[in-house]
Amino acid sequence: MRNPQMGKVTLVGTGPGDPDLLTLRALKVIEQADAVVHDRLVSPEIMRLVPARARRVDVGKQPQHHPVPQDEINELLVSLALQGLNVARLKGGDPLIFGRGSEEAQALRDAGIPVSYVPGITAAQGAAASAGVPLTHRGLATGVRYVTGHRAGDAELALDWASLASEDTTLVVYMGAANIGEIAAQLIARGLPQQLPVLMIIAATTPREQRCVSALARIARDAAAHSGTAPMLFIIGHVVSLYRGERGADHLRPVIEAALAEAHA
Amino acid sequence: MRNPQMGKVTLVGTGPGDPDLLTLRALKVIEQADAVVHDRLVSPEIMRLVPARARRVDVGKQPQHHPVPQDEINELLVSLALQGLNVARLKGGDPLIFGRGSEEAQALRDAGIPVSYVPGITAAQGAAASAGVPLTHRGLATGVRYVTGHRAGDAELALDWASLASEDTTLVVYMGAANIGEIAAQLIARGLPQQLPVLMIIAATTPREQRCVSALARIARDAAAHSGTAPMLFIIGHVVSLYRGERGADHLRPVIEAALAEAHA
Repeated sequence: MRNPQMGKVTLVGTGPGDPDLLTLRALKVIEQADAVVHDRLVSPEIMRLVPARARRVDVGKQPQHHPVPQDEINELLVSLALQGLNVARLKGGDPLIFGRGSEEAQALRDAGIPVSYVPGITAAQGAAASAGVPLTHRGLATGVRYVTGHRAGDAELALDWASLASEDTTLVVYMGAANIGEIAAQLIARGLPQQLPVLMIIAATTPREQRCVSALARIARDAAAHSGTAPMLFIIGHVVSLYRGERGADHLRPVIEAALAEAHA
Repeated sequence: MRNPQMGKVTLVGTGPGDPDLLTLRALKVIEQADAVVHDRLVSPEIMRLVPARARRVDVGKQPQHHPVPQDEINELLVSLALQGLNVARLKGGDPLIFGRGSEEAQALRDAGIPVSYVPGITAAQGAAASAGVPLTHRGLATGVRYVTGHRAGDAELALDWASLASEDTTLVVYMGAANIGEIAAQLIARGLPQQLPVLMIIAATTPREQRCVSALARIARDAAAHSGTAPMLFIIGHVVSLYRGERGADHLRPVIEAALAEAHA
């Protein structure tokens, strides 16, 4: 028998930031929550939907500030549920793509607490829809791949470079602001064209959204010029040639032609 | 100046099937549509949300039946918008991940018709949340990759096998029911373990959802045993070892131990 005093935890993906991109189920879970645990990837616009009566706990990880360690977040979630609360654990994007949702779920299950997931629109999807750039497109990309460009402390970037340098797959790099230069250099060293287009999107789908079209050989410099803005996402591949920006695609023609010439040389 | 008689087209991702996984924006677009163009990947549960006054056009591609060719779909969308209608083009999943949304958008833009996108939860995300299997997880998968297992006519599967056989990336195969045997054989030939776990999910997030845990060496047989059910999705990788099914994970222990033993042999 389930303990009637036992609460539950729902790991909710809140999408890239625009509250209109919440799923219907995510909104229901937020509206019914007794307690909301969130971090800095959950936009202020979405936090405004949390009912006034709900307890809020910010476990946000600000760059340069000490984050709440993962095991303390796990303990917090267990503790809130053991108090009988209906807990919404909000995460930007999707809880099962990066974001460590399944680590929190394991800790909760180990404590006997019911846990479920609500998927969310990933930043890659939000950015693609906002910019009008497909993640797959016949003749340009047969698939799409998401990786994280984050490295833990001084560790090496744990990426399979040979496998990543696949020109017919769109590569989306999350959390790569600090290391995009190394990523681009490694991809070029494995044979991707220097002029392969890259779309950098900052704070996709929010009022703070910015976009910059670049290429593998220039993206480190372009990203550095926007340092301090977050979150930053990189879409790498020929699909970016379909980006029309605010001014149509004409400004991109030199980039695209250079990439195609290099690819077919 | 925009022609006041000109309609518009919104390419809407309706997600994997459960209407609760629509985004708030997708629901608004459906509710305000004058015309809805949909195919068979849009679930009956979602079609019930279309207002009675809206014109409906089914361009569904049933297996073994003649689909509406893509250029006729493009012409239809242009024609409806030129009649001044507010058109919702509904697609299962996300319109910019497979599904050819950007091809339809190009045809519309060429005709001068305003077009925009609403992202949707992909089948991979819906299946992951429903089954409780992460697509990335520290120590098991550093990234995730979506490919299509569909081949056009007698063409070869256009997949970069060497790049795909990357054990630290979760591989999700869409539209692979007919070719999963060849895909698994190629991945094994490139070095992935025969016992690498595979989760097959049919009609994820709908009342018709079915799941089957298998392994690379057995998935062709398991998929054949479910032939005729659709849509079928395959999640390949060590993250599947976290699947607990309806009975907890005990029934999986032999599969997981065999995979780990083989991986570390």
